[in-house]
Amino acid sequence: MDVGIYGLGIMGSNLALNIADSGLNVSVYNRDNDRTEAFLVNNTHKKISGFKDIETFIGSLKKPRKIILMILSSAVDEVIEEILPLVEKFDIVIDGGNSHYKDTIRREQKLSSKDIYFVGLGISGGEKGARFGPSLMYGGSKKVYGLIEPILNKIAAKTNEGDICSAYIGENGAGHYVKMIHNGIEYADMQLIVEAYFFMKRAFNLDNLKISEVFDKWGESDLSSYLIEITSKILKYKENNEYLLDKILDVANQKGTGKWVAIEALQLNVPANLIFESLFARFLSGLKHERVIASDILRMDMDAVKFDLSDWILDLYYALLVAKILAYTQGFMMLKSASVNYAWDLNLGKIALIWREGCIIKSVFLAKIKLAYDKNPHLINLLFDDYFLDIIKNHHKSLRRIVSKASEIGIPLPAFYASLSFLDSYSTSYLPANLIQAQRDFFGAHSFERIDSKRGEFFHNIWE
Amino acid sequence: MDVGIYGLGIMGSNLALNIADSGLNVSVYNRDNDRTEAFLVNNTHKKISGFKDIETFIGSLKKPRKIILMILSSAVDEVIEEILPLVEKFDIVIDGGNSHYKDTIRREQKLSSKDIYFVGLGISGGEKGARFGPSLMYGGSKKVYGLIEPILNKIAAKTNEGDICSAYIGENGAGHYVKMIHNGIEYADMQLIVEAYFFMKRAFNLDNLKISEVFDKWGESDLSSYLIEITSKILKYKENNEYLLDKILDVANQKGTGKWVAIEALQLNVPANLIFESLFARFLSGLKHERVIASDILRMDMDAVKFDLSDWILDLYYALLVAKILAYTQGFMMLKSASVNYAWDLNLGKIALIWREGCIIKSVFLAKIKLAYDKNPHLINLLFDDYFLDIIKNHHKSLRRIVSKASEIGIPLPAFYASLSFLDSYSTSYLPANLIQAQRDFFGAHSFERIDSKRGEFFHNIWE
Repeated sequence: MDVGIYGLGIMGSNLALNIADSGLNVSVYNRDNDRTEAFLVNNTHKKISGFKDIETFIGSLKKPRKIILMILSSAVDEVIEEILPLVEKFDIVIDGGNSHYKDTIRREQKLSSKDIYFVGLGISGGEKGARFGPSLMYGGSKKVYGLIEPILNKIAAKTNEGDICSAYIGENGAGHYVKMIHNGIEYADMQLIVEAYFFMKRAFNLDNLKISEVFDKWGESDLSSYLIEITSKILKYKENNEYLLDKILDVANQKGTGKWVAIEALQLNVPANLIFESLFARFLSGLKHERVIASDILRMDMDAVKFDLSDWILDLYYALLVAKILAYTQGFMMLKSASVNYAWDLNLGKIALIWREGCIIKSVFLAKIKLAYDKNPHLINLLFDDYFLDIIKNHHKSLRRIVSKASEIGIPLPAFYASLSFLDSYSTSYLPANLIQAQRDFFGAHSFERIDSKRGEFFHNIWE
Repeated sequence: MDVGIYGLGIMGSNLALNIADSGLNVSVYNRDNDRTEAFLVNNTHKKISGFKDIETFIGSLKKPRKIILMILSSAVDEVIEEILPLVEKFDIVIDGGNSHYKDTIRREQKLSSKDIYFVGLGISGGEKGARFGPSLMYGGSKKVYGLIEPILNKIAAKTNEGDICSAYIGENGAGHYVKMIHNGIEYADMQLIVEAYFFMKRAFNLDNLKISEVFDKWGESDLSSYLIEITSKILKYKENNEYLLDKILDVANQKGTGKWVAIEALQLNVPANLIFESLFARFLSGLKHERVIASDILRMDMDAVKFDLSDWILDLYYALLVAKILAYTQGFMMLKSASVNYAWDLNLGKIALIWREGCIIKSVFLAKIKLAYDKNPHLINLLFDDYFLDIIKNHHKSLRRIVSKASEIGIPLPAFYASLSFLDSYSTSYLPANLIQAQRDFFGAHSFERIDSKRGEFFHNIWE
């Protein structure tokens, strides 16, 4: 057998079927035999064989063995212990789950000391992706990648241009890291769309169908993306003649990857405020009880405003486009910083390319990012690429008008606000941080650098 | 001898002198004997005795011994190991440094298993505070607090009304925790002041002296605080007839506590975006090189605007006041959440009181917070107190005008923006998080709750 899948949850089952469809022989195993049996009953596939004990499962595999763990990240250490006595030198253990990259680095180190290869494989795209073509991010030994690449290339998503949405990302935790950043960008992308919806609903007073039509139109532009597409479908979905969306409680959950990204941004000193505000928007949604009270007792009377929709919808479109550029900019700032910090030598254009299809943030927009890094692999910042620069120069005023108006009439657009304050801070050559340093020097003798002196020289002043 | 001080850095030296001034006999010790000698030469004080070896230092102390460690947090574990063989049951080891509260919890647990008391003492106020009256936050055994309280009460700062800025905060890490939150609020408080300065400089085109005078005037109002006071002094400080502030490089440093607070907010799900933006402002200041490039190539032409200063300075005043309320609100949301999470039963009014004097954020404003929790110790949120509610209701439009104008003319005010988006999100009863949940259900079958159903019931929809 060519490949073993350990774990037959939805993701593992779908991945097994995807690999089998590609023509490879797949061994499957699940700790709970009933699940293995159910899988085999529901999916008769001549390329798939099920095993009831771990020894014969692993014994069934061609050497060097390729075992893909499709299990909860909390179970990975335990399962590694379980299979370690059964594998041999140069076998390859692949973690296809949602592990934290630091765990992957640790596990890779441990297994490589036993001459077992350990790969952290980021798999994006959910159930459907796993079944019909996910976006795949390989982190691990480059040498071993040659053995795995043919399999990954077969099962991965493809772009219309025939590009494969799978790539070698870097050593050890790089694959899981890039998957994590994908999810952070996903948070921001979703939040921006949701704020655009909210502005149309609350400021423009549009009904769901009309808003859906606006998103349909935007779906034919530079904003074309899977998330815009499903947003439009959600908006017009009716249940018993009423919009289902309006029946959904406004409390958003999360699985924790957003926090991972946030903590990582703090560690790298990247001011990724769009990603944070998207996370905070979910935190705030969870304070439903307090919000209901606050909306009652804080009632802030606001003037009604008339909007000329033909202008304002265009402004909102460009505001969303500019803010989206800034969200991706922040994600790629993190990747650039991590690339240096963890010595991964990340190929940022390639990363944009493998997100083109198969994953949640798939979009034509990512092709523009790919192009930017093709033109200049050493781009200091995504914003400095001509394509993005032009959009920002030509349309930043639309973002300004939306933020300005929203702040005036009291519609919370935290990610839009964050995008503008980031843009204006980032493009200000002399920020008021001089006063921060002066204050710190005043109360704590923390000293400061001077503009009329070399960097790295610090001065202390006796202020009184 | 009544108290031992281990560590004669600036903070330790000043604290030793402060305690000695209060009439207690103080033993001092430093690992480097030269430093002890230098201290004794520079400070002849009949209440202070220096020791050159750790045994006689500890042996000099009355039992139960009270040893205050004034050392780098990175050295605490090592020093504990060093003194453990020399102390006895019921002796008290006090960490007066800037330790992370989780380390304090761990150390307290370890030492209490040996019947040694371990106290995490938050000390705020820098050198001057340590010398003449700091704000003191005691975390540790309540029983032992009785033995330490008289000392702390003598050396702590006092308010004009005679209140003592020292208190029992809670078990184990509570003191260091509250000190940490103090620093988080400090970041936000500083950033807001700095943004107000920047707006006066860039939008109003005021010179430093004029801005200094504005702060002087604000210093006589509800905004009266130490930080406003030093800001005014900094602004008018001249060196060779030029403002020193204008010579200071706009790159702000940090010692890491801000990140601690940020990570903690993430763990508690508190959307403390003002504290985060204050941290990000420092991150952004560090990207000086990129900002200089960006300011050049992103040049976004903006319309010049005339301001009627008599109105606008008042707007800026109220904007700062409202934003400050929201910054402290976020800090106290963290305290409230931590109080439950770590079972510390924090007295929030008391905490506001001990910050009234002796620390960096000292202000009359904190008396209002104290009052709010005196009136209602179970206040759901600081914003719901009448005093703060009235200010917000009456003046939120000033904050709106500032944010609206800044976004229009391109002056980055990240903390002001964050304060407004927080206010508007927090007081919106139905946020667009329903669409987030619908998207998550669409692409990942994550399910959602419904407004026409009980909380905790989850539904999945087949969207297409």
